[in-house]
Amino acid sequence: MGDPLRSSRLSFQKQNRKGVVGMGLLSEGLTQIVIPLAAVVGLGFALLQWFLVSRVKVSGGHGERNGYKDKLIGEEEEGVNSLEVTIKCAEIQHAISIGATSFLFTQYKYLSIFVGVFSAIIFLFLGSVKGFSTKSEPCTYNTGNMCKPALANAFFSTVAFLLGAFTSVLSGFLGMKIATYANARTTLEARRGVGKAFITAFRSGAVMGFLLAANGLLVLYASINLFKLYYGDDWEGLYESITGYGLGGSSMALFGRVGGGIYTKAADVGADLVGKVERNIPEDDPRNPAVIADNVGDNVGDIAGMGSDLFGSYAESSCAALFVASISSFGIGHDYTAMSYPLIISSMGIVVCLITTLFATDLFEIKKVSEIEPALKRQLVISTVLMTVGIAVVTFVALPSEFTLFSFGTNKAVKNWYLFFCVAIGLWAGLVIGYTTEYYTSNAYSPVQDVADSCRTGAATNVIFGLALGYKSVIIPVFAIAFAIYVSFSLAAMYGIAVAALGMLSTISTGLAIDAYGPISDNAGGIAEMAGMSHEIRERTDALDAAGNTTAAIGKGFAIGSAALVSLALFGAYVSRAGIETVDVLTPKVFIGLLVGAMLPYWFSAMTMKSVGSAALKMVEEVRRQFNTIPGLMEGTAKPDYATCVKISTDASLKEMIPPGALVMLTPLIAGTFFGVETLAGILAGSLVSGVQIAISASNTGGAWDNAKKYIEAGASEHAKSLGPKGSEPHKAAVIGDTIGDPLKDTSGPSLNILIKLMAVESLVFAPFFAAHGGLLFKWL
Amino acid sequence: MGDPLRSSRLSFQKQNRKGVVGMGLLSEGLTQIVIPLAAVVGLGFALLQWFLVSRVKVSGGHGERNGYKDKLIGEEEEGVNSLEVTIKCAEIQHAISIGATSFLFTQYKYLSIFVGVFSAIIFLFLGSVKGFSTKSEPCTYNTGNMCKPALANAFFSTVAFLLGAFTSVLSGFLGMKIATYANARTTLEARRGVGKAFITAFRSGAVMGFLLAANGLLVLYASINLFKLYYGDDWEGLYESITGYGLGGSSMALFGRVGGGIYTKAADVGADLVGKVERNIPEDDPRNPAVIADNVGDNVGDIAGMGSDLFGSYAESSCAALFVASISSFGIGHDYTAMSYPLIISSMGIVVCLITTLFATDLFEIKKVSEIEPALKRQLVISTVLMTVGIAVVTFVALPSEFTLFSFGTNKAVKNWYLFFCVAIGLWAGLVIGYTTEYYTSNAYSPVQDVADSCRTGAATNVIFGLALGYKSVIIPVFAIAFAIYVSFSLAAMYGIAVAALGMLSTISTGLAIDAYGPISDNAGGIAEMAGMSHEIRERTDALDAAGNTTAAIGKGFAIGSAALVSLALFGAYVSRAGIETVDVLTPKVFIGLLVGAMLPYWFSAMTMKSVGSAALKMVEEVRRQFNTIPGLMEGTAKPDYATCVKISTDASLKEMIPPGALVMLTPLIAGTFFGVETLAGILAGSLVSGVQIAISASNTGGAWDNAKKYIEAGASEHAKSLGPKGSEPHKAAVIGDTIGDPLKDTSGPSLNILIKLMAVESLVFAPFFAAHGGLLFKWL
Repeated sequence: MGDPLRSSRLSFQKQNRKGVVGMGLLSEGLTQIVIPLAAVVGLGFALLQWFLVSRVKVSGGHGERNGYKDKLIGEEEEGVNSLEVTIKCAEIQHAISIGATSFLFTQYKYLSIFVGVFSAIIFLFLGSVKGFSTKSEPCTYNTGNMCKPALANAFFSTVAFLLGAFTSVLSGFLGMKIATYANARTTLEARRGVGKAFITAFRSGAVMGFLLAANGLLVLYASINLFKLYYGDDWEGLYESITGYGLGGSSMALFGRVGGGIYTKAADVGADLVGKVERNIPEDDPRNPAVIADNVGDNVGDIAGMGSDLFGSYAESSCAALFVASISSFGIGHDYTAMSYPLIISSMGIVVCLITTLFATDLFEIKKVSEIEPALKRQLVISTVLMTVGIAVVTFVALPSEFTLFSFGTNKAVKNWYLFFCVAIGLWAGLVIGYTTEYYTSNAYSPVQDVADSCRTGAATNVIFGLALGYKSVIIPVFAIAFAIYVSFSLAAMYGIAVAALGMLSTISTGLAIDAYGPISDNAGGIAEMAGMSHEIRERTDALDAAGNTTAAIGKGFAIGSAALVSLALFGAYVSRAGIETVDVLTPKVFIGLLVGAMLPYWFSAMTMKSVGSAALKMVEEVRRQFNTIPGLMEGTAKPDYATCVKISTDASLKEMIPPGALVMLTPLIAGTFFGVETLAGILAGSLVSGVQIAISASNTGGAWDNAKKYIEAGASEHAKSLGPKGSEPHKAAVIGDTIGDPLKDTSGPSLNILIKLMAVESLVFAPFFAAHGGLLFKWL
Repeated sequence: MGDPLRSSRLSFQKQNRKGVVGMGLLSEGLTQIVIPLAAVVGLGFALLQWFLVSRVKVSGGHGERNGYKDKLIGEEEEGVNSLEVTIKCAEIQHAISIGATSFLFTQYKYLSIFVGVFSAIIFLFLGSVKGFSTKSEPCTYNTGNMCKPALANAFFSTVAFLLGAFTSVLSGFLGMKIATYANARTTLEARRGVGKAFITAFRSGAVMGFLLAANGLLVLYASINLFKLYYGDDWEGLYESITGYGLGGSSMALFGRVGGGIYTKAADVGADLVGKVERNIPEDDPRNPAVIADNVGDNVGDIAGMGSDLFGSYAESSCAALFVASISSFGIGHDYTAMSYPLIISSMGIVVCLITTLFATDLFEIKKVSEIEPALKRQLVISTVLMTVGIAVVTFVALPSEFTLFSFGTNKAVKNWYLFFCVAIGLWAGLVIGYTTEYYTSNAYSPVQDVADSCRTGAATNVIFGLALGYKSVIIPVFAIAFAIYVSFSLAAMYGIAVAALGMLSTISTGLAIDAYGPISDNAGGIAEMAGMSHEIRERTDALDAAGNTTAAIGKGFAIGSAALVSLALFGAYVSRAGIETVDVLTPKVFIGLLVGAMLPYWFSAMTMKSVGSAALKMVEEVRRQFNTIPGLMEGTAKPDYATCVKISTDASLKEMIPPGALVMLTPLIAGTFFGVETLAGILAGSLVSGVQIAISASNTGGAWDNAKKYIEAGASEHAKSLGPKGSEPHKAAVIGDTIGDPLKDTSGPSLNILIKLMAVESLVFAPFFAAHGGLLFKWL
């Protein structure tokens, strides 16, 4: 493809110089202040929320009133003075926190080996592109200038990878810490009313959301500025190296999601199968030996895993946008503010989410159970509306009115308001996906009620209806994503896609707050049950949890929607970097890639689901063993051996996360090295279009089953009452559906996001190597 | 795209003339004899098998020994003289046959409306391409010559559509007739031993296989020759019109599969949920009001639906190959024998399958239950090995040693032995898919045994393991298909893919015989149960049925594998016909098509599964009503009202087949008309790569659950015994899995083949219209 590509690049570059007709209003100096400032504000806000949560005391004693000085005695308050309950809650929280921390540290030990090996691979592969030469090279896009040697890019890519990995791990870990810090506090606050409990859980979610967004932005900003000390004017090499940050973030997220997902679901399924089904004891009953493992799982899977996942998406979409910008007029014209557009959008996002949070915690007050879900949904709408204004401001302030963007070997003239539409359409597509997800997974609407109704005829019809619901729930999100892709692609090529993804993720702090709120409430309910608190408290936490199930599904919808856009943006960046100009389905190399790529999500899901199944079987055996051999366990006079169950989940998840992890990490390397860049492009496109569907349907099917069960249990309508109560035949069928949904919605479904993103970002990082040395098999033939 | 395309066509044509360096050994006259002769031989063989089956008398009486004069009295024989049993069997068979015939005729009434409307659409759309002009046009590919007007093509395409629809319906109908003719005969023969019963069931399957293959070939051959009377030397127009034959065949198959699939599974699920689960009566118990509907369903869904489906694949792959050949050197050089290569391959297939059948019916004898499955598998191997030789013979006799093939606007020089590899690789890929399917669905291997084992912990783990098994079973078939595509695509472009598909389908007679054998045995078991025959007879028919479950899964594997290749071939033909030269994933038009296309199989599955679920709920209510209101029903003193259940299934399936049918039929029309040929190309590619995966996994998951249940019921090993017996908790969990699998394996899974094929062939037929008038939306914008 040599000649035409080179000449098109030349002509592209000529027009590029011409394309930059001016700079935006925001000066470089101001940009350098605005971004870190926003990050610091985000961090400060997170710490403030943490402080507010910490005012609820779990240590008990000293006659304090849970830290609040106001004495609000009313009929909502119950047993707030009981020291015994407080101490019990503190104990349980401590056990959960210890379990989660010890699991994460064990996992990090394994991951550090992976990170070490993979860093070496990155350095060696990328270093070999020009035979480890330390000489400067002519730039690929910024022709006529000299760029830093490939060896430097190899080194800095490796450093960026390490930074990304570290930040991802940190995000997950901090999220877990605040969640295990907040769960018992939420339980205790539930004694003072559902509104208080809601605020505690929500604030804790916000801590995670803001920490993650601010941290991600700050590290990325700092890395760019540090790398620049070496790279100077060579922005091509600089932003190419920065892509390693996305790879590091996402590869940690993969293991976090898969390992955490297997952990949490092995414990959950195992606990339910023996406890609920065989022994007929309630969920989270302290007599169940797997109950601590189950609650630990919520924190390491749903919290730490989700945190790493969304951090990965955020890092990758930023990197994809930065990379494309660096080979466009922004980069070649050295317009720092315009280059930083993705970071400024994220900065604005932090500010917008900060204001949005106040609507939930300070401006409105939750008084009734029925107000919880609307309050959470209002967060989505408020943040989206405010952010739309924010995007408009950022776009007109940071960008020149006209410029050119690189688009597969050609250039594309773009006006700044095009980019406003790209970012905004991503943002609003996210809202559409969120609302669709809510419709299909909340038991306030007919889809879930139909699934609940199908439990009348047993588990089989429940499963059939649930699967059908998941399949159907794919339709609108896919059209929304397709529409966003078409518009942003048409307006601003691959850069448009990348910033659309960023748009969807710009309200990540709010999204994560809503999302983390769910597992915290779930844990709070578990603690209430284990601490032997009254039925009323449990009902309040259940109401929080039911809303949390829906918001968790919404969060997963966002995660997969943004993953689709991010992957496409990374795919585009990869294709640009690898020098491919068309990915033609009509060539056999590409088509077989497409077909095999579409198969990978199935292979991956087969592995993760089987892993959950096997680990759950082991858990079941252990729980049965304890029930059978520990005298007095069922009667509550003896304590179960929680630690063994925690160990089973830990061992199983660490062992079982390796094969699916290897599948994802090795596929691009093998495909690129042996089959070449075109086949790999096919694989990326295939896994993207196929993975999106399974991920959405798996999440929503699982969410719907969970809420169908809760619908029957709550018995809030005539219809629901006719299916219940707990223990009725329809309820038993619903429990089976819920159990099947566990690995779908919490292990295989959400891990697929990472599969599609990670393969794309890995391909992007290794693109120079594949372009130089790849396709060995076809070369030999 | 005007200029470059035209010039490439010109240069292509020049080389074409040069490309034809000679003719094959087979003269045109001989070709004109060989093809119809093979078809007639096939028909004769089918009739002979029918005659042999008919010698088993079900009318009873007259002291005859079931038609066989030899008196083979041994310990295997049991009650062969009981007139009462024979009469009972005859009655049941009659009821099933009446139900099936009446359903099919009702369905045909609906279909005739569809066919009428769609014929008008085809004629109007294609006629409008050149404004209904009756003037001859310059040919598109055979430049310099004049071709018939577009209006003529519109007319003949419509005629071909009608012929295809008629042949498809006839294939399904005849299959159903022989199946309902053979089921009671198989039951009666089961009294004389498992070997006799096997031969009866297998011969009946062979009747269907040979009737269908011979009939399809004959009608296609006759149509081509009749059309030629008008078209003369204009082969371009001739073979373009013939593609209507594939469209007709597949559109009938769609409704057959979907309607039949909903029918059979509504009845099956409904019967099981009340009978097996609630009332604890055995499967096929005559007290169950839905039992006749269930058995009717096997015939209209599994037999007639499968027949139409495979006929559709066969017709489409032939049409795709013929179309590509007609614009290649074969067509432009008017080499009739080489043009007829696809038909000669099919002719050879009939002969090979005829010999293969003798191995099952005459050369070996089944004496033990354990010999059934190997005998069926041997059929696959024998036919594949013989056919490989057959392909070599046909290739070297019918083709010139070198020629050129059209490949997206360029030409490709091809040697005849390239085509041998293309056909052979399709054939062998089919065998690999068949064996993989067997491994994942037969209870002789560990995957199904693991699923059975997971029933220990209840239905939830059974479902999790079953879904994981289905996902995993996709891997090898997809690699096999990808390999076949790569090799045949590289050797002979799209023509290579088309003949690879034909290769996979060349042994269709044997494939269908094996496949139809399954539902016949299933019915035979049902009749044995209903006629109150002994436990031993039921065990024999169960053994036949268990082998049939695996072969049914193998048949579905073939159907989906061939559908993938056929769709790709049709896709290639469509792209050629629409004048597209690249389908570039990097353009937004194509990418959104890919994404939405990948979603369609989910949408379609959601519809069909929900339909089965709703219809089953109605059936459950009716069955429950009858058990509750008909006194003496459970005691066996009163007869249930079978007819109402038959009517529920009929009405539900006819009503519910319309939305999924509309989705498939309208998508290409809407996409092509409003979004244009590129987006449609993306949709076809997306639905192909995504549909293959769901179809395979759904079929295999369902097959595995069915056989896991049978594994526990049969209790043939220590492990199996530890899970059983019938009625144990693990068995109940297995029954739930089996019920969930029903719509997956018999409704949504196999219908997806048709979705991907039908959208492709419809696009091909309407390609001239889309190329001329399509893409309205993008034109407006």
